[in-house]
Amino acid sequence: MSKKICISLDAMGGDYGVDVVLPAADMVLQRCPSIELLLFGDLKVIEPMLEEYPRLKQAALLRHCDVSIGMDEKPSQALRKGRGKSSMWQSIAAVKNGEADVAVSAGNTGALMAMAKFCLRTMSGIERPALAAIWPTMRGESIVLDVGATIGADAQQLIDFAILGCAMSRSIHGINQPTVGLLNVGVEEVKGVEEVRTAGKMLRSLSPPNLVYSGFVEGDDIGKGAVDVVVTEGFAGNIALKTAEGTVKQFTGYLRAAMNRTLMSKIGYLFARGAFARLRAKLDPRKVNGGVFLGLNGIVIKSHGGSDAEGFAAAVELAYDMARNELIKKISDDLANYHRGRFSEAEDN
Amino acid sequence: MSKKICISLDAMGGDYGVDVVLPAADMVLQRCPSIELLLFGDLKVIEPMLEEYPRLKQAALLRHCDVSIGMDEKPSQALRKGRGKSSMWQSIAAVKNGEADVAVSAGNTGALMAMAKFCLRTMSGIERPALAAIWPTMRGESIVLDVGATIGADAQQLIDFAILGCAMSRSIHGINQPTVGLLNVGVEEVKGVEEVRTAGKMLRSLSPPNLVYSGFVEGDDIGKGAVDVVVTEGFAGNIALKTAEGTVKQFTGYLRAAMNRTLMSKIGYLFARGAFARLRAKLDPRKVNGGVFLGLNGIVIKSHGGSDAEGFAAAVELAYDMARNELIKKISDDLANYHRGRFSEAEDN
Repeated sequence: MSKKICISLDAMGGDYGVDVVLPAADMVLQRCPSIELLLFGDLKVIEPMLEEYPRLKQAALLRHCDVSIGMDEKPSQALRKGRGKSSMWQSIAAVKNGEADVAVSAGNTGALMAMAKFCLRTMSGIERPALAAIWPTMRGESIVLDVGATIGADAQQLIDFAILGCAMSRSIHGINQPTVGLLNVGVEEVKGVEEVRTAGKMLRSLSPPNLVYSGFVEGDDIGKGAVDVVVTEGFAGNIALKTAEGTVKQFTGYLRAAMNRTLMSKIGYLFARGAFARLRAKLDPRKVNGGVFLGLNGIVIKSHGGSDAEGFAAAVELAYDMARNELIKKISDDLANYHRGRFSEAEDN
Repeated sequence: MSKKICISLDAMGGDYGVDVVLPAADMVLQRCPSIELLLFGDLKVIEPMLEEYPRLKQAALLRHCDVSIGMDEKPSQALRKGRGKSSMWQSIAAVKNGEADVAVSAGNTGALMAMAKFCLRTMSGIERPALAAIWPTMRGESIVLDVGATIGADAQQLIDFAILGCAMSRSIHGINQPTVGLLNVGVEEVKGVEEVRTAGKMLRSLSPPNLVYSGFVEGDDIGKGAVDVVVTEGFAGNIALKTAEGTVKQFTGYLRAAMNRTLMSKIGYLFARGAFARLRAKLDPRKVNGGVFLGLNGIVIKSHGGSDAEGFAAAVELAYDMARNELIKKISDDLANYHRGRFSEAEDN
């Protein structure tokens, strides 16, 4: 029998900490009983609460940590205070020392990124990690990265992001040859910043294995699902992601107001409530909760700080999928293939 | 009696050229009979079509141009071919020589920008023009700039954009002291690229007149209407704008599919169709059609290339509002005020 997959959880992270993480962990155990959960946090808080979750109490492995990282602590401050001993650090360290396959935290992004980088280090052949988002599109889901791990990226780093994103696409979407687009302000070759243009030329000429380069894509192509993997540097990527989130909120706000306005529209709502429920499900941010830090020697998933138990559970289940589908191995293989390709090309010259 | 306001139109621009511009011009004349329209284009095409629009035929001033600029011509190519003689150039030149107050074209953005810069030149005290978008928000409308006139902007250029955007807010939204936010990846002072952080510090310390600096805003703050004017460099701004457009299309697609799926939802749709009509009107991109080139010695409005007559008419009416409310004078006054402020500050030191 194969080894059980183990996910480590920062039980103290996020706006609600244990109040969200414990019920979420219990939900996950109910749905995937074969998963192993390793919880890091303040046992004085966690243990009494476990009385409510007998299944979780019986199955989960607990580790006490004195320190937890606040949502507004700066990365440097969090590292100083929490390195080695915080629940956030410990959940990541469990991945490093092989106890866990993936770590999940709803704690603050900057601190989590800093700790993940510091503890796991970047993979060989990768200069910078990226934060990848799963983006619902009209054709399913795409992967967009970097959505804010770092700011600015040179052409080689953009290509690294493409390789990382494709490995993720293979791992969670089962797409063997993902299509890749570089986010730009136009689709013509002459458009945009130099790094993006250079990355485009390199992708065309190198044609890395297991990846189909489709050229530049624009902001509106993301939602269309024009490509499986959208590559961008972190500043523009973060702004795109948050702008889309804001637009969805705006739209649902308008829709709610419109349906509440007259008796006729309220009656219409009653008839169509099945349709509205489907629409809500389609737009439910909890379903695709979880940014994924890629490019480190281990996977760390960042759940939305404000997500509820259903949302946090979705992030843990995403972690489970990634571990089962051997994301890290896929990334390493792709990087090795890519560098082999470049070396043989260099030898040819 | 005050001088009539005159708008010059590039009759050949956009995906549909005269087929959209002429009916749009006719609509505008019906709604604002006091407006004067100056049409540039191929009279062999325009004149026979005018038989269908007697009101337009009677009122519009026509100017023949042999050359028209294609939607896929590069800026440099368009300049070489169309400088001096194309309908696009001529409509802008009419603003330069005082015949028209504002020019409107649905032609390709790059070519229009290049011609507008070349023909009108940037205003004194402004290094770079910006393309400003009117963004529908949950609280009304905001102005977002630059959405793609140029790529990259230093701190001083971002401040110029703030001044330009505020003058536009005063002119079309009647807001005396617009609030301004700098688009960034976080609201903390330490976040983001250096240019944005420096611009933030400068806006705080200089506190230009007629402008309330609100700090950094994130992508999701745009749709909330958190500030009246959102300032960003053109790469991120363009991606934000197009991502929002894509998200709206995605959402309306989901909604349509959901309402068509079952008999109950179809009945619901019938009852609530008034609500849906209001929603559609709220999201109608034609209502806020028109990017505005700011920072030049004259105003040029870029209508969506694919917009229909209703959309083009909205862009012409936006032009009319700007001219009536003396946008250029407001910008000049604000720039003068700002530079006076900086000089007196320099003297104080």
